[in-house]
Amino acid sequence: MKLIALNGNFDLAKAVAEHVGMPLLTTSVKHFADGEIQINIDETVRGDDIFVIQSINDPVNENFMELMIVLDALRRASAHTINVVLPYFAYSRADRKTRSREPITAKLVSNLIEIGGADRVVALDLHADQIQGFFDIPVDHLQALPILAQYFLDKKLGTADEIVVVAPDHSSTKRARALAEYFDCPIAIVDKRDSNPSVDPLDIIGDVDGKICIIADDLIDTASRMVWSANSLHEAGAKEIYGCATHAIFSSGAPEKLQDSVLKEVVVTDSIRMPEEKKFPKLVRLSVSDLLARAINKIYNNESIHSLFVEEDQKD
Amino acid sequence: MKLIALNGNFDLAKAVAEHVGMPLLTTSVKHFADGEIQINIDETVRGDDIFVIQSINDPVNENFMELMIVLDALRRASAHTINVVLPYFAYSRADRKTRSREPITAKLVSNLIEIGGADRVVALDLHADQIQGFFDIPVDHLQALPILAQYFLDKKLGTADEIVVVAPDHSSTKRARALAEYFDCPIAIVDKRDSNPSVDPLDIIGDVDGKICIIADDLIDTASRMVWSANSLHEAGAKEIYGCATHAIFSSGAPEKLQDSVLKEVVVTDSIRMPEEKKFPKLVRLSVSDLLARAINKIYNNESIHSLFVEEDQKD
Amino acid sequence: MKLIALNGNFDLAKAVAEHVGMPLLTTSVKHFADGEIQINIDETVRGDDIFVIQSINDPVNENFMELMIVLDALRRASAHTINVVLPYFAYSRADRKTRSREPITAKLVSNLIEIGGADRVVALDLHADQIQGFFDIPVDHLQALPILAQYFLDKKLGTADEIVVVAPDHSSTKRARALAEYFDCPIAIVDKRDSNPSVDPLDIIGDVDGKICIIADDLIDTASRMVWSANSLHEAGAKEIYGCATHAIFSSGAPEKLQDSVLKEVVVTDSIRMPEEKKFPKLVRLSVSDLLARAINKIYNNESIHSLFVEEDQKD
Amino acid sequence: MKLIALNGNFDLAKAVAEHVGMPLLTTSVKHFADGEIQINIDETVRGDDIFVIQSINDPVNENFMELMIVLDALRRASAHTINVVLPYFAYSRADRKTRSREPITAKLVSNLIEIGGADRVVALDLHADQIQGFFDIPVDHLQALPILAQYFLDKKLGTADEIVVVAPDHSSTKRARALAEYFDCPIAIVDKRDSNPSVDPLDIIGDVDGKICIIADDLIDTASRMVWSANSLHEAGAKEIYGCATHAIFSSGAPEKLQDSVLKEVVVTDSIRMPEEKKFPKLVRLSVSDLLARAINKIYNNESIHSLFVEEDQKD
Amino acid sequence: MKLIALNGNFDLAKAVAEHVGMPLLTTSVKHFADGEIQINIDETVRGDDIFVIQSINDPVNENFMELMIVLDALRRASAHTINVVLPYFAYSRADRKTRSREPITAKLVSNLIEIGGADRVVALDLHADQIQGFFDIPVDHLQALPILAQYFLDKKLGTADEIVVVAPDHSSTKRARALAEYFDCPIAIVDKRDSNPSVDPLDIIGDVDGKICIIADDLIDTASRMVWSANSLHEAGAKEIYGCATHAIFSSGAPEKLQDSVLKEVVVTDSIRMPEEKKFPKLVRLSVSDLLARAINKIYNNESIHSLFVEEDQKD
Amino acid sequence: MKLIALNGNFDLAKAVAEHVGMPLLTTSVKHFADGEIQINIDETVRGDDIFVIQSINDPVNENFMELMIVLDALRRASAHTINVVLPYFAYSRADRKTRSREPITAKLVSNLIEIGGADRVVALDLHADQIQGFFDIPVDHLQALPILAQYFLDKKLGTADEIVVVAPDHSSTKRARALAEYFDCPIAIVDKRDSNPSVDPLDIIGDVDGKICIIADDLIDTASRMVWSANSLHEAGAKEIYGCATHAIFSSGAPEKLQDSVLKEVVVTDSIRMPEEKKFPKLVRLSVSDLLARAINKIYNNESIHSLFVEEDQKD
Repeated sequence: MKLIALNGNFDLAKAVAEHVGMPLLTTSVKHFADGEIQINIDETVRGDDIFVIQSINDPVNENFMELMIVLDALRRASAHTINVVLPYFAYSRADRKTRSREPITAKLVSNLIEIGGADRVVALDLHADQIQGFFDIPVDHLQALPILAQYFLDKKLGTADEIVVVAPDHSSTKRARALAEYFDCPIAIVDKRDSNPSVDPLDIIGDVDGKICIIADDLIDTASRMVWSANSLHEAGAKEIYGCATHAIFSSGAPEKLQDSVLKEVVVTDSIRMPEEKKFPKLVRLSVSDLLARAINKIYNNESIHSLFVEEDQKD
Repeated sequence: MKLIALNGNFDLAKAVAEHVGMPLLTTSVKHFADGEIQINIDETVRGDDIFVIQSINDPVNENFMELMIVLDALRRASAHTINVVLPYFAYSRADRKTRSREPITAKLVSNLIEIGGADRVVALDLHADQIQGFFDIPVDHLQALPILAQYFLDKKLGTADEIVVVAPDHSSTKRARALAEYFDCPIAIVDKRDSNPSVDPLDIIGDVDGKICIIADDLIDTASRMVWSANSLHEAGAKEIYGCATHAIFSSGAPEKLQDSVLKEVVVTDSIRMPEEKKFPKLVRLSVSDLLARAINKIYNNESIHSLFVEEDQKD
Repeated sequence: MKLIALNGNFDLAKAVAEHVGMPLLTTSVKHFADGEIQINIDETVRGDDIFVIQSINDPVNENFMELMIVLDALRRASAHTINVVLPYFAYSRADRKTRSREPITAKLVSNLIEIGGADRVVALDLHADQIQGFFDIPVDHLQALPILAQYFLDKKLGTADEIVVVAPDHSSTKRARALAEYFDCPIAIVDKRDSNPSVDPLDIIGDVDGKICIIADDLIDTASRMVWSANSLHEAGAKEIYGCATHAIFSSGAPEKLQDSVLKEVVVTDSIRMPEEKKFPKLVRLSVSDLLARAINKIYNNESIHSLFVEEDQKD
Repeated sequence: MKLIALNGNFDLAKAVAEHVGMPLLTTSVKHFADGEIQINIDETVRGDDIFVIQSINDPVNENFMELMIVLDALRRASAHTINVVLPYFAYSRADRKTRSREPITAKLVSNLIEIGGADRVVALDLHADQIQGFFDIPVDHLQALPILAQYFLDKKLGTADEIVVVAPDHSSTKRARALAEYFDCPIAIVDKRDSNPSVDPLDIIGDVDGKICIIADDLIDTASRMVWSANSLHEAGAKEIYGCATHAIFSSGAPEKLQDSVLKEVVVTDSIRMPEEKKFPKLVRLSVSDLLARAINKIYNNESIHSLFVEEDQKD
Repeated sequence: MKLIALNGNFDLAKAVAEHVGMPLLTTSVKHFADGEIQINIDETVRGDDIFVIQSINDPVNENFMELMIVLDALRRASAHTINVVLPYFAYSRADRKTRSREPITAKLVSNLIEIGGADRVVALDLHADQIQGFFDIPVDHLQALPILAQYFLDKKLGTADEIVVVAPDHSSTKRARALAEYFDCPIAIVDKRDSNPSVDPLDIIGDVDGKICIIADDLIDTASRMVWSANSLHEAGAKEIYGCATHAIFSSGAPEKLQDSVLKEVVVTDSIRMPEEKKFPKLVRLSVSDLLARAINKIYNNESIHSLFVEEDQKD
Repeated sequence: MKLIALNGNFDLAKAVAEHVGMPLLTTSVKHFADGEIQINIDETVRGDDIFVIQSINDPVNENFMELMIVLDALRRASAHTINVVLPYFAYSRADRKTRSREPITAKLVSNLIEIGGADRVVALDLHADQIQGFFDIPVDHLQALPILAQYFLDKKLGTADEIVVVAPDHSSTKRARALAEYFDCPIAIVDKRDSNPSVDPLDIIGDVDGKICIIADDLIDTASRMVWSANSLHEAGAKEIYGCATHAIFSSGAPEKLQDSVLKEVVVTDSIRMPEEKKFPKLVRLSVSDLLARAINKIYNNESIHSLFVEEDQKD
């Protein structure tokens, strides 16, 4: 077994390697002035089981091409198996056609990784569970929810009656319910419609008056949804508001918006590389490195990773 | 252009053909005593653009194999293009791994159809939009929602204040919001948790007291979810309760359960073949044959089917 | 190495597992009311060499889909290799186009198994040897002929002069000669033409008068061919008539027809699941479980299975 | 539509082109001293439907590579469709594994033609019908049997009682019966076993004494089987013996053996190129050029070629 | 036929569209803050023959992903054929492994374009001719050499005796000879070895003393090779020195280096987008838009593009 | 690990096996009178890592088909991995389209080997390095240059000032420079243009007067280029002229031409089978068997073969 880290989120990869207890393979990655990438793997990989750790985060196309190029190099260099660990999977929101003549870029990215030579993908909190099915190779789909839940449990925010987990849009109701199970508490939904949420507060479905609210999303990009949800909960009488999400993209001034909002804390993971200037006082960043390391060890040892994820009923 | 109807839902196929204005190709399908299927296409298809209409409904494996076998026959018989029209797509709930070592049967079925030689799929209200991405061939994804909405609009049930569209589980909140837009009304969610819904009423998130409720689901299988949702709404003070869904599977005594429930009407489409014994007084069955026929004609004439479906924003 | 048995012919699979000396993997297979199949493998298969034992017998499409779904589950669950053991391969008679616009369903089934993720197929007496070539993965093609031959040898029916092996149609002459070699005896052929064999006896080519005849076929489906062949031999003066075949489909009243016929015994194998009601006094059912178990063990241990089959000259 | 003839059987290709009523595309094929082949197509083929006519006859590997190379050239030169017309398909006897570790070369050749870019294959009297299933592209399988039958009918050899069609081995019984139908006459089989047929006459199953025998094979290679069958029939009292086959390979002194044999005439087609030195007085060579031309025209015009072949029952 | 231009080199695409005489399809391409690209094609493309014009120039990964995403959109939107016009093909220098464990990124990029759904590629002066073979779809490989040559011919630089075309490294000798043919003049080669060319002039093979030298390369990236070649020629007594190349990447201060060099003019094409700040007085930029437009029209009309490129002998 | 030698260059394969220290697998290869090849592998290969050694030399199509057929046999016989060792790779000069409607046969051959089931290719001095990229499986590309260089070094021909390595055409300048590095000497180029080289001597670029010249090519086919280059060098005043190349095809009277030429010695390797009648006094034939054996051992032991080849800079 050998580990390779690319540039997407090198700090996380290093932390994973430490948890696995194995050094990272020496690999040189050059980005030329015109954007071309040149990768050289400096040690032999013949017959090895390789785990490539790469978050496809900002700049997503650069990081994605790094991954594709290293796959090509590994395949031609006779690696035995190539396992791709993707703490963050870009383009995951482009997982369906929402209008005519749209691409399904998440499927494109999946196809390319599979065709590029990956034998397995380890992913974390994909935007939609169905993205597992975009692959025909095994996908081990890990979940950061227990890590986020444990953080809030440790805070002892209040009793089941005092807490409400809030879905910031219609698609995330299921995730809200999953998190609420940890507190045995009710959920509420932010019911965004055509109105402009930056002007008027949105309707809240469910009772949040006087409650401690935890908004649960899978990712925070521009933070608009997180902030307008917080504002709407505030208007609806919420006592305290926390936000959480697995993936912190934080583009377009998101850190400022979040710091200046009514949110008390914003809890995320380190699945995405975060430069210092994006950090802010209200931010709490939990690490998924141990989770990923345990998955890698179990996979290499052919053990079930069953224990690393939460099951549900398929056919209701 | 030629149309072929298999046995899945022959009545719907005939209706589609009438709307298209074209006879069905003579095709003989024999099911032998041991289950083997023999198909013979009785007219030449060389160089033709073929539309195969097949609902993969009960018995789903038989109907699926009919489809696969006719694809093989058409490919070998030199059809120019093969378009597969699937008013109902079985196994669509098996669209992700919900526990270790589970198959993703919806992807399997998609792969087989694509590999079998289909050039295009026309589908109706897939359980998850992401199933479009299970294919790499074009998928024209039609929606029955406007047909269901129009039915309720025509009934003039009440004002926007009097109506609530209800999501019977966490996954269907988005669909509920989409239907609610037709009435400019609020939504509510049935918040099923670990409790036994056949004994205790479920929590309702949102205000339904004294309201006319329309429960919106994509399919009704055993009808348990529809019935316990209706009961819970009833307990919560709902005035009138309607159920609707695109696909009426109606297995395991569903018709009886629905007829005997507090539901006032159950509105579905004819996407799935329905034997007479499954029909019941409260059932309203709307036809999607005109919708499918319009899609087929537009596809054959290389016109955009843009107008046949409702768009949404991909990246919020 | 792990063994999985599906529902096609569970009794045979159990017997094979006993011969191999290894328990069957716990697997739950549910068939829902609408026909959908849900499979869950209850133990880890990561990195294992799996042998799936499934007879694609009645109901063939259900059993075939069980196989396809378990292949999908195994692939996604990271099995190391997937070996498919098919004691009976349905649709094997649809191995060529016999008229315009016919499918070649045996090839379709082969393609799907291969694409579904099988690494190897172990088959028994395929209807045509050429079906091996429908696959590009290794096919280990076993033969039940020695088992059938040994049964008749043990009976000591008579001298080489007294026995004739009979081909019930033109396609099975080669098989008849192969069986006849065990007795060093002549063969005869039932020469079916356009006439109606249920009315007029068919021509027999070869001398059967006063002889002990063994009709050798690969499968018995409706038993018409077996019965009219027996009748014709009887008319032609045969003294005693036995029928044998590897695969006993026995559809459409075959057991009654065979029991009521001039046949003295009908000797088959247990490649196909046989419900009690299909058994009848004249039936002799020999087991192929030991043959299959020996093949599985040799494959797993990378030994040649050369000794398990009878060779012939390719280019004459 | 454009026609290309390679070197396999150029005379036949020219005759086909004349029947089609279309010139052959100018193509230069060079064979270098070391065996490398260089092909240049001298006219544009962009957007054209191309029919490549190539018998893969002696030297089979050279002719096969010519075909593969021209497929590559046509694909890269943007031909619209590539139809491969194979009057003779080499390696067709290697259609199954007859012993351990044997290739199935007929499948290999089929795979390569398909992968090489062929959109359709037109074949003539494949050694086994199942070879159609080696392809997933359409195969139009033509039969020379009616041409051979017509020749013998025109000769008015005798009444149905006087003629017997003879299968020279166990595999060709079906073909013998098909030819016998034209004369409404019985068949007989040469029952070759382990004995040395060049020394001892073989057993004949069926009555040939005093009869006019027509031995029907699909191909004549070394002619051993044809000659020893003729000798055995002669020993068994046959009055007159004719041999016929579609494909005349005539290797290893076959012409001499046939001319010197008890055969009265040897009737074959021109599917295989025949140098003058292989012709002999008893040889009758019928042309399949008109049959191939009619197939090409029907295919190009998207008409059924149904009328060009004899149907049979698939499932008996 | 419809034309789509992406952002790689939009000005060139517009010029091509004008020469073709056809508007560009309205397409919206958004680059989000985190680097994700969203593409929407605003007009129907069902059944159309699409030409996508995209130079994969700086930033190469962004432009490559734009191309891949639009291919996905076009395929799913039922375009009839997708023709990819690549005035500049990035990564073309990574066309072989030059050391252990290196990728062959040019093949990777070719594979992805082909798998992404392209039916044809139109390329211009690929770094190595062999890259055509990286594709299995048709590649129309255009050459800018005649455009560059005509420019110098029009200048009437001198007689055949006065001019020398210079290969700046060992790989470009063939290109130098091809350009020299236009002037019927000799060639010379810059013989770079291990020495440091920025300090010591390089050896020149061939006679350049007192001559007008035209250095011919396929691309100019950092311009180091062009400048040190010019310096070395100057040292060797060259009278006047011109540089030319098809693709002007101009990274890392190349414009300054070239302007400040002993070169009299640097002649390139507009295959690569050039921002104003990269232009400099000595630069001459010739357009390939007319060449590309003629190729597109010929391809669409199924005419040979034979006349658009210079042939050579394959086997010498 | 097991080694198989086919007929291409059996002597070399035997020598390789000796160096590897392992016997060749018993394999019977029959070529029938009509050209069909029948291969049987006489020992089990289940689960083995197989190295097939086959030079695709004269007769190239026969040897290529031997390779393809053995690949089919090995795949079906359940070999674990199949490594194809190609001391000589035919058709490598057909590596690009040099005119309209030409095939790229080197890519076709590469595709077929890959599709045929090869897991890896070991090649020697491919005509163009880019052919590595024609494969998507690992290619270990070995170089005979050090062997040729050592031979000349051992001869102590003269000082760096006295030797010139000569490229016989424009494409081989890079190879000439690589060989020249061993002697730290200059290079020269034979500048072939349209003139007839058999009449007029060709221009020589670079100084060869009074020098010892070593002409370096990758292969010698008809020897025309080698001979006219030698003649031109002789005219230009060269003192002594040697020729060298890796692959000695020697077709069309090459041995006589070379023996009768001004060349002092012709140094080649044994990559290609050489019948006795092609040998001549001036010929020196060095063996690559040790090089191939070392590569095979390193590959089998998963060691880097880094040390077996000369690296270069990819992006200059």
